[in-house]
Amino acid sequence: MAKFAIMGFGTVGGGVAEVLRLNGGAIAEKLGEPLSLQYILDLRDLSETPYADKAVKDFSILENDPELELVVEAIGGAKAALEFTRRALLAGKHVVTSNKELVAAHGRELLAIAREKNVSYLFEASVGGGIPVLRPLSQCLSGNRVQEIVGILNGTTNYILTRMVQDGVSFDEALREAQAKGYAEQNPAADVEGLDACRKICILSDLAWGGEVRPEAVHTQGITAIDLRDVAIASGAGYRIKLLGRALALPDGRLAAYVAPHLVPLSCPVAGVDDVFNAIMIRGNAVGDVMFYGRGAGDLPTASAVMGDIIDALQHRGSPRKLGWDRDAALVDFDTELPLYWYLRGDFTPPPGSQILSDGAVIVGPVSHREAKALVQRFAAQVMLPVLR
Amino acid sequence: MAKFAIMGFGTVGGGVAEVLRLNGGAIAEKLGEPLSLQYILDLRDLSETPYADKAVKDFSILENDPELELVVEAIGGAKAALEFTRRALLAGKHVVTSNKELVAAHGRELLAIAREKNVSYLFEASVGGGIPVLRPLSQCLSGNRVQEIVGILNGTTNYILTRMVQDGVSFDEALREAQAKGYAEQNPAADVEGLDACRKICILSDLAWGGEVRPEAVHTQGITAIDLRDVAIASGAGYRIKLLGRALALPDGRLAAYVAPHLVPLSCPVAGVDDVFNAIMIRGNAVGDVMFYGRGAGDLPTASAVMGDIIDALQHRGSPRKLGWDRDAALVDFDTELPLYWYLRGDFTPPPGSQILSDGAVIVGPVSHREAKALVQRFAAQVMLPVLR
Repeated sequence: MAKFAIMGFGTVGGGVAEVLRLNGGAIAEKLGEPLSLQYILDLRDLSETPYADKAVKDFSILENDPELELVVEAIGGAKAALEFTRRALLAGKHVVTSNKELVAAHGRELLAIAREKNVSYLFEASVGGGIPVLRPLSQCLSGNRVQEIVGILNGTTNYILTRMVQDGVSFDEALREAQAKGYAEQNPAADVEGLDACRKICILSDLAWGGEVRPEAVHTQGITAIDLRDVAIASGAGYRIKLLGRALALPDGRLAAYVAPHLVPLSCPVAGVDDVFNAIMIRGNAVGDVMFYGRGAGDLPTASAVMGDIIDALQHRGSPRKLGWDRDAALVDFDTELPLYWYLRGDFTPPPGSQILSDGAVIVGPVSHREAKALVQRFAAQVMLPVLR
Repeated sequence: MAKFAIMGFGTVGGGVAEVLRLNGGAIAEKLGEPLSLQYILDLRDLSETPYADKAVKDFSILENDPELELVVEAIGGAKAALEFTRRALLAGKHVVTSNKELVAAHGRELLAIAREKNVSYLFEASVGGGIPVLRPLSQCLSGNRVQEIVGILNGTTNYILTRMVQDGVSFDEALREAQAKGYAEQNPAADVEGLDACRKICILSDLAWGGEVRPEAVHTQGITAIDLRDVAIASGAGYRIKLLGRALALPDGRLAAYVAPHLVPLSCPVAGVDDVFNAIMIRGNAVGDVMFYGRGAGDLPTASAVMGDIIDALQHRGSPRKLGWDRDAALVDFDTELPLYWYLRGDFTPPPGSQILSDGAVIVGPVSHREAKALVQRFAAQVMLPVLR
């Protein structure tokens, strides 16, 4: 019997308990032993739930139970989650999480502790929800030099943009809908300002190239300024506007990483990924382009990834997978060192050599972010978005 | 230093050597030791290649080298490949392959030997070429009950169908083009008659449900009878014709598996997968639908998957991943027990209740294959294809 605990009984934590209830028999068959949920750590009152007998409020009960092998951290944030993850690993317990904020900010330290204690710290669910992407990247594609990662990493903003593109709904209205459907938080800043996507592209980069990319070093632009006019112009020219996280290995060995709404040509498979779906494209020097697609959020999809990690950790007791990034990544300066194509719109004379779209919109490039900003000022353009090529 | 050999120096074997040449430094970093290609077993004369000093013609040299840890089987077929794989595993060597024919027909026996000898027998490259799909299925999605697998599993036939759909080229002409481009063999039967896709859906089913599905038990229909009229009618009605391998878990616990050209609605992400690309959709009861997309063949993409398996096998020496199927799958009778929707075309009076398309084509269902064949006879229809819903 393998014993585990869930910390934080919200959407993800509840989903993990539900997946165990649904699929416990099949999971036990794969593990060769039953998987038993011993504790649920939550400050809320769980006495009216089916899990009343498992509820505890004191982390030290988990920490001090020598039979408890694994803890699911579904608290979120980087305060209690950080402290309890650290202490659980130090107590020799495997930890599985979907907490991208914690992994992006403190994964390096936590993975080092896990290595030292010979346990697993796994976080497949932190990127792409239920979509398998981190394990394929770090295992199946390990014979490649990764050249680029680009993806729709946030389901909430993809839902909002899909509503704007397909139905001409304004950003504000689409956001209200997303909140009503439970896709967006009441405070949607982390989603619509791109921070959630930023954390995910950091984790992907950390794993792909083995150097830490810190979220605060990543140029991050959200979708709050996207206007229906740009949506219409882009559609007319054969593009979709998508919020992308993107990371590239440059020929000199340095990395570029940024988050921004892009014009994506319809010929790119990512352009057709709508609603709350996510898709992550990885380019390797041997495999070419591979894409992973599915629901990037939700209780059961996220719990699916957590459960896959739980099974993996318990199947590899004593020989945990080697994961980690133990140096700083060398990043280029996004502002000056990464030439891109840019969509500009405004009531202006187009810069020479630009590709003319419609309604005062053009595509220029390749030029750096700083040069594009200079063009915006010089020609009095109003909007500026990178274009995926 | 980890020492390995390649058996069979054709497209895949040559690709593995090339990936090692390209990425050997990065691979050594992941392994913590250099990966050294010791032998290439091939009956051809390799004296004019850069690998002349590694060429051997006698398998027993590999078998009897106690320092040789791993063998890549890239011979193909199920004769010498079977014998050498068996002997390599019995000699305690890990074996990695892309040989779907061998895995589909003899995987059960070979995995049992591997388990007994505590070595790995890995075959990620046998399905989807470079696309990570078997490891995500057996690891990341292991917390799910898999409900359905459906995919474009053969790049050659997808290229042919894409040319027919997009450019109105006939089957015969598209096949000649595919041969000229090196996508199709001079004897294209295994591709165009669906056998290659059949072997792949068997391997996916074996892993997803743990029971062996034998290729000869799977209803398999190829694309040789696809007519440009059906392509045009399908396009006009919002469908693409795609050769799909499909496997379903039915409520009574039995499986259905078959291969056939389907009408796929454009709303399904698989419909937009063109040219030589493959895509595999997996539906789990927790994760919902996830899709894996990329190049399903080619020397470097396939070698990428082989190299991922090599690294995995060597990283888990002594604790190989538990894989296998050690019972027969319970299959429904495709002819009578699997109700589907069917596209029928002919110069006939449509059956009552059918959905009328154009040019004498209708969609009927859900009815069994046998009932659909009876409708074909009764109404003198000429063409009959399943429709994906």
